[in-house]
Amino acid sequence: MTMSTALLTDHYELTMLQAALRSGAAHRRAVFEVFARHLPGGRRYGVVAGTGRVLDELEDFRFRDEELSYLREKQVVDEPTLAFLADYRFSGDVYGYREGDVYFPASPIMVVEGTFAEAVLLETLTLSILNHDCAIASAASRMTNAAGNRPIIEMGSRRTHEWSAVAAARAAYIAGFASTSNLMAGKIYGVPTAGTAAHAFTLLHDTERAAFEAQIAALGPETTLLIDTYEVPEAVRTAVELAGAKLGAVRIDSGDLAAAAQEVREQLDALGAFNTRIVVTSDLDEYAIAALAAAPVDGYGVGTSLVTGSGVPTAALVYKMVARETSAGVMEPVAKRSVGKPSRGGRKEPYRLFDESGHAETELITTSGPAPEGGVPLLHQLVRDGEVIGREPLGAARERHARTIAGLPQEALHLGRGYAAIATEFA
Amino acid sequence: MTMSTALLTDHYELTMLQAALRSGAAHRRAVFEVFARHLPGGRRYGVVAGTGRVLDELEDFRFRDEELSYLREKQVVDEPTLAFLADYRFSGDVYGYREGDVYFPASPIMVVEGTFAEAVLLETLTLSILNHDCAIASAASRMTNAAGNRPIIEMGSRRTHEWSAVAAARAAYIAGFASTSNLMAGKIYGVPTAGTAAHAFTLLHDTERAAFEAQIAALGPETTLLIDTYEVPEAVRTAVELAGAKLGAVRIDSGDLAAAAQEVREQLDALGAFNTRIVVTSDLDEYAIAALAAAPVDGYGVGTSLVTGSGVPTAALVYKMVARETSAGVMEPVAKRSVGKPSRGGRKEPYRLFDESGHAETELITTSGPAPEGGVPLLHQLVRDGEVIGREPLGAARERHARTIAGLPQEALHLGRGYAAIATEFA
Repeated sequence: MTMSTALLTDHYELTMLQAALRSGAAHRRAVFEVFARHLPGGRRYGVVAGTGRVLDELEDFRFRDEELSYLREKQVVDEPTLAFLADYRFSGDVYGYREGDVYFPASPIMVVEGTFAEAVLLETLTLSILNHDCAIASAASRMTNAAGNRPIIEMGSRRTHEWSAVAAARAAYIAGFASTSNLMAGKIYGVPTAGTAAHAFTLLHDTERAAFEAQIAALGPETTLLIDTYEVPEAVRTAVELAGAKLGAVRIDSGDLAAAAQEVREQLDALGAFNTRIVVTSDLDEYAIAALAAAPVDGYGVGTSLVTGSGVPTAALVYKMVARETSAGVMEPVAKRSVGKPSRGGRKEPYRLFDESGHAETELITTSGPAPEGGVPLLHQLVRDGEVIGREPLGAARERHARTIAGLPQEALHLGRGYAAIATEFA
Repeated sequence: MTMSTALLTDHYELTMLQAALRSGAAHRRAVFEVFARHLPGGRRYGVVAGTGRVLDELEDFRFRDEELSYLREKQVVDEPTLAFLADYRFSGDVYGYREGDVYFPASPIMVVEGTFAEAVLLETLTLSILNHDCAIASAASRMTNAAGNRPIIEMGSRRTHEWSAVAAARAAYIAGFASTSNLMAGKIYGVPTAGTAAHAFTLLHDTERAAFEAQIAALGPETTLLIDTYEVPEAVRTAVELAGAKLGAVRIDSGDLAAAAQEVREQLDALGAFNTRIVVTSDLDEYAIAALAAAPVDGYGVGTSLVTGSGVPTAALVYKMVARETSAGVMEPVAKRSVGKPSRGGRKEPYRLFDESGHAETELITTSGPAPEGGVPLLHQLVRDGEVIGREPLGAARERHARTIAGLPQEALHLGRGYAAIATEFA
């Protein structure tokens, strides 16, 4: 462990722990579930991402001397609580939807079972990861749907917190992005990285020709040249003159992208550069990508809108206790009655039901009884008795996402605001 | 250094470096500036935050064996470039607006001077930090203005990436928030932390009374009790019965907050708990805070809207080369001509001009000539020859912010969409 994640936690989780240790209720068994009451932004489905990160950070969730000293110095909690934290290891069970799967309102995408003490401590970190990563993946999935077979490069690192950027690149890759500009995401998660060049590179050289020459000399003719620093037609002419028909790609980063792509395509073809691809960037989101479907574009670069969730930067996921052990030692469902914030008590078991054509039809959430006929169980055990058992390669999540999207009803892919693509039913 | 920040960088920064090393242009002197072409969301001003984090992470920006091995294995760049990176230490100068200060369109809030090679590598990390932290601080400032003298607790950690949360707490504190729920922000940055209790704590116990008793026993009567898990009037009665008139505060987290606060205040007063404060939470933003100005509320907790920048999650800051050394060894201004993305060439020197009443009137941005009479220079040297010299305590930024806001024209505090509160002029 390089760094403890234990203080990525809200103050009140620890003071609640102190009070529950004092009352003795801390040791009662409890079940917490992560779910969204609605899909913000009128989205048709959400995409599960971040689960693997939760497992990684759970293993680093330790109160070492450094963390304990801080808590003691600031008198956040008392000595008995510090003693409990010093020994803290999550020893319970975690179940979750698999990464890349989709979710709908009330889908229990993660279930944490343990004592109240050990499960409540994980609330903040779990929600931080899932609210961020699911929001990004949900936006990314709409973009890859809109792009069809054309690849999208994730390039939003500079528009979000430096570590959000790494997680965003990971989430986008799960949801079908081809690559990322973010090198840390390449190093940590194995996401393929890619890049072109910036206007500064052209401006640095005395002429655009000198910049293109330098880039081709260093990176080969298969490189991607940025052609809108000065005059686009002149840049295209120079680019093909220097790289020949082997020129890999050109990038357009400003103006009317559809019109510019059309003109550049015609010019490239006239110059014999039939295989040179056109990549467009510049404030693209899923709507702009969809609007470019008929333009001769070979790939997209998406930045700001991806890392900000395209209008929905957080997924509205909550972490709620749904069952607890009573003083009599019996597990019972619980739910608060606050106005406008519905919660359903009881540990859930969710299944997805499909119609005869193989398309998802219903998210069936049960609290008891046998599995429904033909229902596909959605929860998988990720942690058993505190030990992480549910890791999988990132590529598996990415493949699952593509398969899952193919199995959604057609209306799930509409970009306009609407309702969840399939109904959530309770049984 | 616990962890290198060097790979929190876009792939193309390194391939541009490779090409520029090949052409020799890498060693030309260059000036990059960070500025916003506009203030997104119709904001009247932006708030500078993140500068101190840039300085911290600049010192950890090193390509060690671990980073170099990754770059070599993935063939991101060639061996001469890897050799350059192995020796990389930023040896140039950085100037910046002070944290807590405000900015307007075109304000050069950070200026990086060095060779092209050393300055271009810092683009992604610098923008990630400043785009995030300035967006959060800008939203936070509107909230503290709306709240007046009532304290706001930042409690959005669970709604954003786990490390964005830490930076958000820091930015909010600069912009006048009283405290944060985030313990890591307490530990790393010394931001005061605070917390109340969650519904799960009440639900865990067999009765609300048992939960309140446990919390008071552990945390004292000065604690804040959450009163909307079941019936509010019953909860208030129980709370005062158990804690007496010394009860610190109650928290309302649902329903019509203004009406609920009014009823709770009357009930508390009737029970003699005149000094018990009322804290409200539940999807508050600056507009909701302003709407509660007349309600008997003593403090606010703000989560989602703070960490998502209240509709503006990124600050639209760019990092642009504005001057470079020519092949003849002369510095000259540069600016690209892309459609719709204006840039002004040349190293800037910004000043703020004030009217006779002491209110800010103009952001004057010069590229040459003497300082304007009465103009306050806004750039301060932060890094000299690669050495960080511009650190300051977080409290200094917080105090500067309060002073700076007091010196803005009244219209700067309007919450509606509009234009920058003072004009940017070029000279």
